[in-house]
Amino acid sequence: MDTVYKKSINYHKKSGGKIAIKSLVNVKDKNDLSLAYTPGVAEPCRAIVKNSAESYNLTWKGRTVAVISDGSAVLGLGNIGADAAIPVMEGKALLIKKFAGIDAIPIVINTQNTEEIIRFVQLIAPNFAGVNLEDISAPRCFQIEESLQNIGIPVFHDDQHGTAIAVTAALHNAAKVVNKPYTSLKVIIVGAGAAGIAISQMLLGLNCFGKKCLRNLNIVSVQDVILVDRKGALCEGRKDQNIYKQAVAAMSNKSKKKGNLAEVVRGFDVIIGVSGPNTITEAMIKSMSVRPIVFAMANPTPEILPDAARRSGAYVVATGRSDFPNQINNVLVFPGVFKAVVQKRLKIITTEMKIATSRTLEKMVKNPSANNIIPDVFTPHLADKIAQAICHVLL
Amino acid sequence: MDTVYKKSINYHKKSGGKIAIKSLVNVKDKNDLSLAYTPGVAEPCRAIVKNSAESYNLTWKGRTVAVISDGSAVLGLGNIGADAAIPVMEGKALLIKKFAGIDAIPIVINTQNTEEIIRFVQLIAPNFAGVNLEDISAPRCFQIEESLQNIGIPVFHDDQHGTAIAVTAALHNAAKVVNKPYTSLKVIIVGAGAAGIAISQMLLGLNCFGKKCLRNLNIVSVQDVILVDRKGALCEGRKDQNIYKQAVAAMSNKSKKKGNLAEVVRGFDVIIGVSGPNTITEAMIKSMSVRPIVFAMANPTPEILPDAARRSGAYVVATGRSDFPNQINNVLVFPGVFKAVVQKRLKIITTEMKIATSRTLEKMVKNPSANNIIPDVFTPHLADKIAQAICHVLL
Repeated sequence: MDTVYKKSINYHKKSGGKIAIKSLVNVKDKNDLSLAYTPGVAEPCRAIVKNSAESYNLTWKGRTVAVISDGSAVLGLGNIGADAAIPVMEGKALLIKKFAGIDAIPIVINTQNTEEIIRFVQLIAPNFAGVNLEDISAPRCFQIEESLQNIGIPVFHDDQHGTAIAVTAALHNAAKVVNKPYTSLKVIIVGAGAAGIAISQMLLGLNCFGKKCLRNLNIVSVQDVILVDRKGALCEGRKDQNIYKQAVAAMSNKSKKKGNLAEVVRGFDVIIGVSGPNTITEAMIKSMSVRPIVFAMANPTPEILPDAARRSGAYVVATGRSDFPNQINNVLVFPGVFKAVVQKRLKIITTEMKIATSRTLEKMVKNPSANNIIPDVFTPHLADKIAQAICHVLL
Repeated sequence: MDTVYKKSINYHKKSGGKIAIKSLVNVKDKNDLSLAYTPGVAEPCRAIVKNSAESYNLTWKGRTVAVISDGSAVLGLGNIGADAAIPVMEGKALLIKKFAGIDAIPIVINTQNTEEIIRFVQLIAPNFAGVNLEDISAPRCFQIEESLQNIGIPVFHDDQHGTAIAVTAALHNAAKVVNKPYTSLKVIIVGAGAAGIAISQMLLGLNCFGKKCLRNLNIVSVQDVILVDRKGALCEGRKDQNIYKQAVAAMSNKSKKKGNLAEVVRGFDVIIGVSGPNTITEAMIKSMSVRPIVFAMANPTPEILPDAARRSGAYVVATGRSDFPNQINNVLVFPGVFKAVVQKRLKIITTEMKIATSRTLEKMVKNPSANNIIPDVFTPHLADKIAQAICHVLL
């Protein structure tokens, strides 16, 4: 890992970051200047005054999204603040350009006050076709996303939904591999932050909007989910649960199990780690049902290494890393989502669109096997297919 | 003009705006992905946590500035709001790329509340090496700039200082052409907004910081300046002057003239228009001293057309437009200023730096004549020379 880190520093130092601005028009003489700038530029301004939607056609807004973070929950690094989060946001902008061909700019915000973040995004929203919220810690991320959706800003908190979409696709295929019906699966989720809560909502077939969760009868759901945080299993009535944990606790953990991870995991089919390094042990996997499925997605160090998981009987193992098989990574999701946002000028990314995205990823794996439950991130036209699936929901 | 406007709409529609994002690194396989994104990207993040200045080396921050506006005073269009201001900000970003080779991104803010704008710029500041404040109406722009300077953010309100710097350079050369000492000039400024007040400060040799104005003995100043707004000449003790007008009134209009433009312009050497179309008449020019100098800088329609000004006896005429001689345009200034900001990571652009910029522009015209008082905006290496002059101030 040290080699990767050293290389990465040089990679980032070489050009000073990873993206730049390029001109799409020529400015070689005063004639060009009179079109790009004064006096000609006054005319597109006037056209937008008449019809604000013209800003999508006459400026970069129509093909540009923002990747916005407060640096409060960055990768496995935690709360590192605005400055230090820039490399991740710039990386995300780079990947949106690479995989979706649309423009994205990284923006970090120098505050972690929830109300200020909401207002900031509202103030900057007119510049962009959509906003990728990124690496904002739970439970603030839920309130921020909900508030912005309520005022009509197209936001997608990738740590929640990107992860949930990719995990759900992978789990459908993993179920086929272990030969258990998806609807029969009992799932433990380790970590009840942004990703854990969003995964639980999608696996349970919920339409969630902030703290309100409703069963959506059109969504196939697993049999049961138990979320586990540092204090043990989430359970209706447990103390010390924020309102978002309470909402999901009320819809999950049907048998109202209490206790720590080692206690509640026994007999379950699936364990999904979205927590931190080394939180899943071999003993836990040995206590699960036959042919257990293990997704150990903490980055860069997973909850358990794939070798150890397999040694303990895990039948399908996935991680978030590119150096192991079955990489469940958000980059499978967000480029296609924002391609659709740009193409259709979406104002909201609905639960149906998220399900359609997940279905598309699932179906791209023709013959699922233990080491092939999710498409490779470099699959050609992947983002196009996802964008098409999302646009199809609108029909 | 209609042809330019029609062409400009097509020019803007063709690619959807004028700038885009480009990748500076290759992402062709999982190895690249592990450097640009997870897990490798964690290392530049950690380096910035240790030393926040590393963000200048490891991200695009070190070579990127923002062009930020609330759309409250755009070109000659006035208060058109955030959406409609995007084409101008994008144009400015394009010109910074073209003339200075550095990256700039356009940002409009969906509020015109002074305190909110100050806070917004503070929250977004960690992303950029500097901020070009643009098209923010007076007197709010003075408070916004001062507040941001006080908290150490490198801001440059181009409508004030870009204009003042270019005008001062042009006026030095115009004085040579009409064979009057610069220090003997008596100047009328039509318009007491952002540009008018900043020009008066620079011509009077003042060090101004918001509402505090001090005489700077190192700056050569003209003999007198009278600012004229819609209510007539600014004058110490006049009612209905905001605090910024009061401050500059106290330092200008030595003979305490009162009255409207036609009354106060009599016998003066220079009239500088930074107001709106058709505010200067032929009769006014005829009432001025011998060989009058007329800068009619309103865009796109000047205070008086050059032909009419010359017919009335104006000896040197300049406008802001590229289709007449002597184009006094901010694009002569801001690319070089931001090149210096990026090169030296400046935290403030001082009065001395502004003077050095103006001097550089002035000296680039080797043999001033009636139609040659300011360099052409396409002069090779212009931004480099300005950046060098600014950096030299630091020595």
